[in-house]
Amino acid sequence: MKVVTVTLNPALDRQFIIEEFSTNAYHRIKDHKHMVMSPGGKGINVSMALARLGVSSIAIGILGGYTGRVLLTELNKVSPLISTSFVHIEEETRENIVIVDPVNHTMTSIDSPGPRVERKAIELLMKRYEIYLSRVEAVVLSGSLPQGLTGEIYGKMAKMARERGKTVFFDMIDEYLTPALEICVPDVVKPDVRGSVTVLGERLEKLEDYVDAAVRLVKKGCKLVVISYEVKNDVVATQDGVWLISTPEEVEPETILGAGDAYVAAMVYKRLTDRSANMLDVAKFGYAAALAKTRKLTKEMPTYDEINEALGLCTLERLR
Amino acid sequence: MKVVTVTLNPALDRQFIIEEFSTNAYHRIKDHKHMVMSPGGKGINVSMALARLGVSSIAIGILGGYTGRVLLTELNKVSPLISTSFVHIEEETRENIVIVDPVNHTMTSIDSPGPRVERKAIELLMKRYEIYLSRVEAVVLSGSLPQGLTGEIYGKMAKMARERGKTVFFDMIDEYLTPALEICVPDVVKPDVRGSVTVLGERLEKLEDYVDAAVRLVKKGCKLVVISYEVKNDVVATQDGVWLISTPEEVEPETILGAGDAYVAAMVYKRLTDRSANMLDVAKFGYAAALAKTRKLTKEMPTYDEINEALGLCTLERLR
Repeated sequence: MKVVTVTLNPALDRQFIIEEFSTNAYHRIKDHKHMVMSPGGKGINVSMALARLGVSSIAIGILGGYTGRVLLTELNKVSPLISTSFVHIEEETRENIVIVDPVNHTMTSIDSPGPRVERKAIELLMKRYEIYLSRVEAVVLSGSLPQGLTGEIYGKMAKMARERGKTVFFDMIDEYLTPALEICVPDVVKPDVRGSVTVLGERLEKLEDYVDAAVRLVKKGCKLVVISYEVKNDVVATQDGVWLISTPEEVEPETILGAGDAYVAAMVYKRLTDRSANMLDVAKFGYAAALAKTRKLTKEMPTYDEINEALGLCTLERLR
Repeated sequence: MKVVTVTLNPALDRQFIIEEFSTNAYHRIKDHKHMVMSPGGKGINVSMALARLGVSSIAIGILGGYTGRVLLTELNKVSPLISTSFVHIEEETRENIVIVDPVNHTMTSIDSPGPRVERKAIELLMKRYEIYLSRVEAVVLSGSLPQGLTGEIYGKMAKMARERGKTVFFDMIDEYLTPALEICVPDVVKPDVRGSVTVLGERLEKLEDYVDAAVRLVKKGCKLVVISYEVKNDVVATQDGVWLISTPEEVEPETILGAGDAYVAAMVYKRLTDRSANMLDVAKFGYAAALAKTRKLTKEMPTYDEINEALGLCTLERLR
């Protein structure tokens, strides 16, 4: 076991494939194949992507109610490389909805709030987290938080990990990121800007805003910062400079489900398995994984060969 | 108990209230109040609407898996006027999704296919149906069918009811309606034209097509035919003529969830409680109930007073 992934607000992902999906319309799905249910939540997705790369991980977090049990059953079927240790609560784990339209090339997501989590469950989880920390090399802290938790928990968990010499990866919205950074700066950060393009309290608009935000995060002590810029471009900053990674390939928006998590998993993989790789190589490998993921409509994570192939399709431009 | 409602393919309705819902976007629901779960499927909705009008009914049909158990628990909470007798199967009952946008005034629906139902479950249901038939005055046969069933089952059930002198109401898509009518013609029919405006195998376009289809159904022996024409108009045909019912009121599309079922329930109510009412009065009362329903965003069914008030807002125009 090399990695612990933390998913405090998992979701049962329900993906619907609907041709010509439009608002104010009545859609009738006829084929069960067009409805895919899968374990979700960013940390869990990262564990699934790591398993595809042959990396064992332990997925921990909080699951609730029947939906939580269904999620766990499904997750345990995915790969023997994923161990699980979730704290169970009564209130139901959420279900997130993704509508993929392969004709109009759209992806429409509806994310729900999670259950209320009581302090007792968090305390239990923190004890387990501490135990697992001693057994891993890296920690992935990502995704949304259930009601009653604030970004501070990510800061505390990062601090515990860094004090033990573990590599820490962050992937979360700014609402959690900013307070977490007050407590501890991780090694790698990929702000989640899908809902609102805000980093460190500032709304990013022009490419220059992205570069400035990435540089600010590096100055805070992050070794690698990746900020998604429009669909298929990423601003990457390390202590050596800032780059734009892109691809001439077409990327259809309906294929990006899970791409961000494939990205994080591939960065973890590269960091753990290739000590000669610099941080820019780590980011490139992540980008290639996300690109490889977008070759599939469903949330199927890419293999090593698929990522390696996609690496050849990435372009790099130095920005600063 | 006055009515039996049959729901062969129930659904747990999951309604999401999302302002400015659009495709190819990422929506994050923050408030649990914007997610409403309720028992659904047309027959069940009719039972809930009848209960609001003080009419007791027995809801029968097929429920499956955990979702079916949740649905039944919720349904049993609604009103003591609703009795239930569902055959339970293993495969999961479906969940239908409705996204209501109170800003752009849209309603976007995603209906899923149901479970596979084996013959044994159907046989068991038919036995129960026969027993309950003797205790009621009217039967509502409405909604979609699970996999493995065709419209003939509605025809057979209608025949059993008519042979026992019961009033039969149909509300279903043409795929089921046409074969059902080959076996038995009901008293009242309201073809479900939400997905595809097809009646008796023909696509309806102009108002005249609607009138012709309604007249054809009356000629087959239906006492009352109601076909929804655009959002707020209905073509109504009886053995005495054809009318257009409408209203000068605004009707927002995002409020129509369950309106068709309120319509059917109110027609059942009028038919059973007011023997002096003619079929046009029955249709008007149904229309008023649907209109009253649209004053609410959620699937809350209208009361008698609300329907009566809406009656004053209905206009009637003779077409033929």
